[in-house]
Amino acid sequence: MSIKSNAGLDAIFHPRSIAIVGATAGPDNIYTQMFLKSLLDFRFEGPIYPVNPKADSVMGLKTYPTVLDVPGPVDYAISLIPASATPQLMRECVAKGVRAVQLFTAGFDETGEQDRTRLQEDLAAMARRGGVRLLGPNCVGIYCPESRMSYASDFPKEVGRVGFIAQSGGYTYLTARIAAARGVRFSKMVSYGNASDINEIELLEYLANDPGTDVICVYIEGTRDGQRHLRVLAEATARKPVVVIKRGHTEGGRRGARSHTGALAGDDMMWDVAFRQAGVIRVEDVEELVDMMVTFLFFPLPRGRKVVLVGGGGGASVRAADQCEAGGLRLPPLPDDLREEVNRHIPLAGSMLTNPMDVLVEAHGGIPSWISILAALDCWEGADMFLWQVCPEMPPFREDIFSQLIIEVRTQMLEEYKALRKPKVVVVHAVETMFGLRELDAIRAKCADEGVAFYPSVLRAARAISRCMDYWDWRGRRAS
Amino acid sequence: MSIKSNAGLDAIFHPRSIAIVGATAGPDNIYTQMFLKSLLDFRFEGPIYPVNPKADSVMGLKTYPTVLDVPGPVDYAISLIPASATPQLMRECVAKGVRAVQLFTAGFDETGEQDRTRLQEDLAAMARRGGVRLLGPNCVGIYCPESRMSYASDFPKEVGRVGFIAQSGGYTYLTARIAAARGVRFSKMVSYGNASDINEIELLEYLANDPGTDVICVYIEGTRDGQRHLRVLAEATARKPVVVIKRGHTEGGRRGARSHTGALAGDDMMWDVAFRQAGVIRVEDVEELVDMMVTFLFFPLPRGRKVVLVGGGGGASVRAADQCEAGGLRLPPLPDDLREEVNRHIPLAGSMLTNPMDVLVEAHGGIPSWISILAALDCWEGADMFLWQVCPEMPPFREDIFSQLIIEVRTQMLEEYKALRKPKVVVVHAVETMFGLRELDAIRAKCADEGVAFYPSVLRAARAISRCMDYWDWRGRRAS
Repeated sequence: MSIKSNAGLDAIFHPRSIAIVGATAGPDNIYTQMFLKSLLDFRFEGPIYPVNPKADSVMGLKTYPTVLDVPGPVDYAISLIPASATPQLMRECVAKGVRAVQLFTAGFDETGEQDRTRLQEDLAAMARRGGVRLLGPNCVGIYCPESRMSYASDFPKEVGRVGFIAQSGGYTYLTARIAAARGVRFSKMVSYGNASDINEIELLEYLANDPGTDVICVYIEGTRDGQRHLRVLAEATARKPVVVIKRGHTEGGRRGARSHTGALAGDDMMWDVAFRQAGVIRVEDVEELVDMMVTFLFFPLPRGRKVVLVGGGGGASVRAADQCEAGGLRLPPLPDDLREEVNRHIPLAGSMLTNPMDVLVEAHGGIPSWISILAALDCWEGADMFLWQVCPEMPPFREDIFSQLIIEVRTQMLEEYKALRKPKVVVVHAVETMFGLRELDAIRAKCADEGVAFYPSVLRAARAISRCMDYWDWRGRRAS
Repeated sequence: MSIKSNAGLDAIFHPRSIAIVGATAGPDNIYTQMFLKSLLDFRFEGPIYPVNPKADSVMGLKTYPTVLDVPGPVDYAISLIPASATPQLMRECVAKGVRAVQLFTAGFDETGEQDRTRLQEDLAAMARRGGVRLLGPNCVGIYCPESRMSYASDFPKEVGRVGFIAQSGGYTYLTARIAAARGVRFSKMVSYGNASDINEIELLEYLANDPGTDVICVYIEGTRDGQRHLRVLAEATARKPVVVIKRGHTEGGRRGARSHTGALAGDDMMWDVAFRQAGVIRVEDVEELVDMMVTFLFFPLPRGRKVVLVGGGGGASVRAADQCEAGGLRLPPLPDDLREEVNRHIPLAGSMLTNPMDVLVEAHGGIPSWISILAALDCWEGADMFLWQVCPEMPPFREDIFSQLIIEVRTQMLEEYKALRKPKVVVVHAVETMFGLRELDAIRAKCADEGVAFYPSVLRAARAISRCMDYWDWRGRRAS
C-alpha cells in the first residue's frame, strides 16, 4: 500500500487559528460574508484574525495590517486579495510560519495567460521552499464540521461519514445542499481549484486513510499525473467506495475545464476504462453522486436484486416497473396465493394485484389495509427489498388542503413501512411543479430524519442500488 | 393517404350535452368532483345531467334516475358506476341515442380475470350494434379546452396546439400540469384506457387530420394492430411531429401494462426500429415529452447546431459544455477578437472568456456589461443560437432576500436576452432544493408568459433541440 499517512494535511483540516486576508468591513464584500461569517456561524473555536490595513475591525473582530502583525500563531490563512498582491502575502506567511495558505483569489493559470500561469508557479515554489502548504488558487477551500470550518453558513453543522473533494467550488455547494436535504452529513469537503500544490491525489490519499470517512466522493476535471491518480484510486476503492464525477469529457467541456481550473481533462474513454478497472463508481452528475451517498449510508445490503414495488397509480407503476428493470433490479411476479391474500384487503377494480402493485390506500380501507398488505409481502421469500413510490403530480386533485391530508396519510404509511424486515426504499417522483415538490420535500425530510433511503425517481433508486451491490460484489470477488 | 376523415370522433370532442352517470351529492365522492366540478369550472356550455336514482340534485344540478329520463338529447355519457351495472347503462344509452359513452369505470380486462374480459367484450359489441362509440373502459376521458371539456379543474382553459393521446390517465394529469408550467397549451387530450372501441390508431388519425393540432404526443403501453398502427404513425409524421412514450418495455413493465390497461406491450426493440423508420420521436418519459413540445412550439429553427453558452459559474459551465455536446450540439471556440471585445466589459479573474462563457453579472458591472456582451455575441456568425443557464443552488448564498434580488436581476437580464436576433434558450438548472425550485419557478413563469423556450437542464435542452432539428432534416430529406 503506497498511500501515505495523513500528517501532512491535518494542518488544513484542524488549524488552531485562521487569518482572513482581505476581509473588509462593509456589507458589500460578499466574500467576507462567505468566509468570515461562516466561521462565526459555525463557532470555529480558535482565534480568527481579519487582515486588512484599512480597517480597525470587521464583524466585531480586531483587524491586523498584515499577517506578520497578528500576535499569536496563524495556522491557516485564507486570501481574498487580488492575484497581484499574493506574492507579498506568501512572503509574509512564510516569515510568520503559517502552516497552510488557501487562495480563494482567482486570475491565475485558469485564464490561459502565460504571465498568470507563471505567477501561480512562482507562488507554489515560494510556498514549497518556505514550508507552507498551498490550497488553490481559485478555490473555496475547506468544510470540516468536526473542526467547525465552513465557507457557507447553511451547510450542516453535524459531522457525517462522507468525504468529498472537488475541483469546482460550485459543485461543493450544490452537493452539500442536495445531500443535506436527503440526510447525508460530511466528514470533510475540499474545493481545491487549480491544484498548484495540494492536489486531487494527495486529498484522495487523505480520505482513504481518514477513519472518519466511509464513502469517498470526487469531482474532477483533470489530473496532472494520471498513472499515480489511478493507482491511488485503486488503493482507495479496496478500502471504501469511491464515487467520481469526471467532467470535461467533450471538446467544449475540455475547453471549459481549462478555463475554469486550468485542468487538462484528457481522453474520456481512457478515463472510463481506468475507472472501471480501479473499481471506481463513475456517475454522470451530482444527482447520481448523492444517490450513491444515500445508498451506501442508508440502504442495508439486500440478499438479491428482486424488488416488490408498491404504490403510485397505474401509469406510474408501469413506468416504475420499466425503470426498476432498466436500472438493474428485477420484479418477480406475485405468486397466486399472495395475490389472493392481498385481494382480501383490496378489490380488483382500480388496483393492480401483481408486481408492480398499485394500491390506492386512500380509496381502499386506508392504513389498516396497507399494513396488512405490507405484512404479507414482507414474509414473501421471493422478494429481497421493498420500493414504495408516490407520484404527487398524477392524482386528479391538487388543492392544498387535499395535499396536506395526503402528506399526513403518507407520513403514517411511512411509519408502518419503515418497520418492515426487508431493506426498503422510498421514492417520491415529483417532476417539476411546486405542488409536487412540496410533497417531495415533506416526505424527504421525514426520511432524512429516520435514515430511510429516499430517491426522487425509481430509475435513480434502482441504478444506485444496483451499483452499490455491484461494488460490494466486486469487493467480495477481489477478497476471495 | 389512408387516414380517415374526422367525422366519427367529433362526437367525443364536441358533444352538445353530457350525462354523468353515478354522480353523487356527498362530498366524499372524489370522482363526482373530478368530472362534474371540472365541467362546471370550465363552463361547459351545453346541459350537464347528473344521473342517479337516489338523489334529487348534485352540485345544484337536477338529477335523473336513468339516462332515459333525461328530457333532451344526450351526446356524451360518463360512467362512474360499478362494472357490473354497465351493461344496463349501455342498453339505456343505445335506446336513448347517446352518441358516445366514456367508461371511467374500471374492473374489466385489465384485471386479467376471464369473466371481466368477457364483460368488456360484450359491452363493446353492444355499443357497436347500437351505434354508440365507447371510450375506455378504465379511462379519464377527454380534455378539450375549445369545447370546455375537462376532468381536472386546474388544467389550462386556453386552447393550444398540442394534441396528446394516452393509455394512462395519470400521465395526462402529469403531462398537462408540467407542460402548462412551461407555457404549453393543448388542442385535445384523451385518456383511452383499455381501448375496447376507440383506440390509439383512430385517435392518432384524428389528430393527424385535426387542423387545431400542430404537434402530436402519444403515451402507449401496447397496441392491438401493430402493422396498422405503424402505418398510421408514418402517415402522421409526414404531416406533423409525433412524439411517443412507449411503456412496458421490460418484463415487469409488461406485466404492469397488462394489469393497468390490459395492453400487450410487445417486443421493445421491434418498436424502437419501427418508430425510427416511421420518423417518430421516441422519448423516455414525460420530462422529455414536454421538452419536445416546448421546442416545437417556442424554439425557432436555427441555421445550425453551434451554440454559445453564457452564465452559470465555473463548474456549471464545464457541465453545461459537456451536456451540450453530449446532447448533439456543438460549442465553437470564441475567436480572439471577440474574446478581446468581451474582455473590455469583464475582467479575466473569476470569469471564463471562452465558450462556455462564465459571466458573473452581479460581480462585473451588472446589466450594462451583460447587454454589451450579448450584443457582441449576437453578431458572431460562428454561432447559431444562445443558451443562457442559471444554477441557483451553486452560489455561496441562499438567504431569501438575496434570492429575491437575484430573481429581479435575472428578470431584467431575460428582457435583454429575449430581444436577441439568434434563436435562444433559457435553462434554470435546479436540482432539488426548495430554494432552487423557487428561482426556477419564477424564471420559468416569465419564460412561459413570453413564449421563450425554457428547460430545467442543459442536457435536456440540447437533446430536445437536436431531436427537433433531426425531425425537420428528416422531413426535408423525405420531401426532396
